[in-house]
Amino acid sequence: MTQSDTERAKALLHGHRESIDRLDAILIYTLGERFKHTQDVGRLKALHDLPPSDPAREAEQITRLEKLAIEANLDPELAKEFQAFIVSKVIRHHEAHRENT
Amino acid sequence: MTQSDTERAKALLHGHRESIDRLDAILIYTLGERFKHTQDVGRLKALHDLPPSDPAREAEQITRLEKLAIEANLDPELAKEFQAFIVSKVIRHHEAHRENT
Repeated sequence: MTQSDTERAKALLHGHRESIDRLDAILIYTLGERFKHTQDVGRLKALHDLPPSDPAREAEQITRLEKLAIEANLDPELAKEFQAFIVSKVIRHHEAHRENT
Repeated sequence: MTQSDTERAKALLHGHRESIDRLDAILIYTLGERFKHTQDVGRLKALHDLPPSDPAREAEQITRLEKLAIEANLDPELAKEFQAFIVSKVIRHHEAHRENT
């Protein structure tokens, strides 16, 4: 491993990190938009006394996300874990709304 | 609560779910692109014998993501949890690479 190899690796690493930072900005803004919708859903559900979780809808979403993950060359297991992460946060928010209404 | 109130609520719920599905497609494709970069980073790190995790870089990312979350009207706590989720998956992938090289 020569000095220039290491320098080249560092330059490559820097480029990847710049891309990752830009992609993270997309993810955060998209999550912000997504949570705006789930907050509205939470308010609607609380107002109409609908249950905070909806297993049928969640099962459809998981199937759809696995399909999208395969198309996007992302590990489908990771897409499922991501979905579970999001749903747990949304349910936490819905329960908070329910307590406040 | 009249019948038309409930019907209106269902129509609103449907519209929010369509938006959520579109936003999820953005999230999954963006995650696919992000993991492509972290896989390249993992390979570079394994090849140059760099540690799989980088606490200084992660601290910078957390500060940046909190700032972005506030701009995007997203709970900064949620952005931090999201970052922790992503980092745990990335480290798991890097360790798998390290074992394979």
